[in-house]
Amino acid sequence: MVVEKSDKLILLTNDDGLYAAGLKTLFEVMEEFGKVVLISTAESMSGMSQALTVKTPLRVKLLEENEKHRIYQCNGTPTDSVKLAVNQLLERIPDFVVAGINHGANASVSVLYSGTMAATLEGCLYGISSVGFSLNNFSPTADFSVCKKYIRIVMKNLTDEPFPPGICLNVNIPAVPVEEIKGIRICRQSKGNWKEEFEKRKDPMGKNYYWLTGFFQNHEPESEDTDEWALTNNYVSLVPVTVDMTAHWYLDKLKKRFENDTA
Amino acid sequence: MVVEKSDKLILLTNDDGLYAAGLKTLFEVMEEFGKVVLISTAESMSGMSQALTVKTPLRVKLLEENEKHRIYQCNGTPTDSVKLAVNQLLERIPDFVVAGINHGANASVSVLYSGTMAATLEGCLYGISSVGFSLNNFSPTADFSVCKKYIRIVMKNLTDEPFPPGICLNVNIPAVPVEEIKGIRICRQSKGNWKEEFEKRKDPMGKNYYWLTGFFQNHEPESEDTDEWALTNNYVSLVPVTVDMTAHWYLDKLKKRFENDTA
Repeated sequence: MVVEKSDKLILLTNDDGLYAAGLKTLFEVMEEFGKVVLISTAESMSGMSQALTVKTPLRVKLLEENEKHRIYQCNGTPTDSVKLAVNQLLERIPDFVVAGINHGANASVSVLYSGTMAATLEGCLYGISSVGFSLNNFSPTADFSVCKKYIRIVMKNLTDEPFPPGICLNVNIPAVPVEEIKGIRICRQSKGNWKEEFEKRKDPMGKNYYWLTGFFQNHEPESEDTDEWALTNNYVSLVPVTVDMTAHWYLDKLKKRFENDTA
Repeated sequence: MVVEKSDKLILLTNDDGLYAAGLKTLFEVMEEFGKVVLISTAESMSGMSQALTVKTPLRVKLLEENEKHRIYQCNGTPTDSVKLAVNQLLERIPDFVVAGINHGANASVSVLYSGTMAATLEGCLYGISSVGFSLNNFSPTADFSVCKKYIRIVMKNLTDEPFPPGICLNVNIPAVPVEEIKGIRICRQSKGNWKEEFEKRKDPMGKNYYWLTGFFQNHEPESEDTDEWALTNNYVSLVPVTVDMTAHWYLDKLKKRFENDTA
């Protein structure tokens, strides 16, 4: 693959592994927008958040190359994959980092645990326009074709105008027939959390072990400006996400709390 | 251990493992403030971010119990440990989730990768007043005694008044003699990123592998309201951290960008 100056160079990854249907769909659409370098793992890396591999070395294998794309298999997390590609594998800094399509929504606080959104945030930290796509369906055989129209809208928008530094995009798409989708809504992240219900079992030696299960609790199901509301009501949600986790609105209050202790 | 209604119940964890010097120091100070349940791993879990263990079951072992504390060893990430403790091991929702003292600073964007801050964010998601402490020294034999004074100030403040929902605290302490610390500063997260320099090596079979290395690049070393500036200038930095990753300031601009596409 030769990357010309006029080509858009797209780094594509996911957290469901190289053989996921969501990745296949996203890959197809990305080839309409530029030269694609795909890097992912053989196995799923769901729930890996922005984890880094620091104790074991990273391995990477070129699986396929032609005029329009290159495909690598890597043994690291989605964050490792973005770092390794940007630093060691790409001809130049890519124009876009694109992740997904995740099998399952990454709305509300799922953004904190998601490997898909971690890869997106990692691209953003390099100053690259980055976007993560998720479909609200966990099934490995979900119909991802509904996503194509909205991926094209988002990528066209990004091609026209990159994101400012420190901003990336979290796109969640309802898993309904495309004609039932009411359009795009710009949203904020819903307030919520996961309510864990660990399943406690006994192994054949009589020792306890736990499986993490649980369900999402939306703290504000009525708020029409949130991503959860949009998804539930068959809208595609677009949330601008920042790498700045400072609670800016609480800075003055915190100063007041510590005013006797601060220098 | 019996937890009375009048007792403060403190859940303590870290990402450097059960035998880390920083954890030992934090444990000692926490016993001044309440009954302590400590849960951590045998091995270090640095750089695990908010990763969840979903493919393997979690195991937990009670190592020690007396009137004032219980200590568990767990095989999960810091986030798993907090989830498991809150849901399966504790008598009730704890008053505080406290993590650290991390060996090495978690200022600027390190908050995104840090297992210590992930455990803190996890406590925050449960609505518990949560704080992560880090010392700006990676050494396993660093002198953590300098931290004690500031841990006490923070915990006293938290005991007087819990944090509002969605807010937790990222505390970074300079690794200098306590008399050289100039006091506490309330800060925002510095803009910066890690500049990766992978080390590429060949294994005995002649195949390439990569080690992640790199160094932090501060994009705004002159900004006196940032955590990096505070640390560099021998202040203890306190950053209020939010679980809401929405770039609220960009919502209107994003609406404008997509106004022809939104419903």
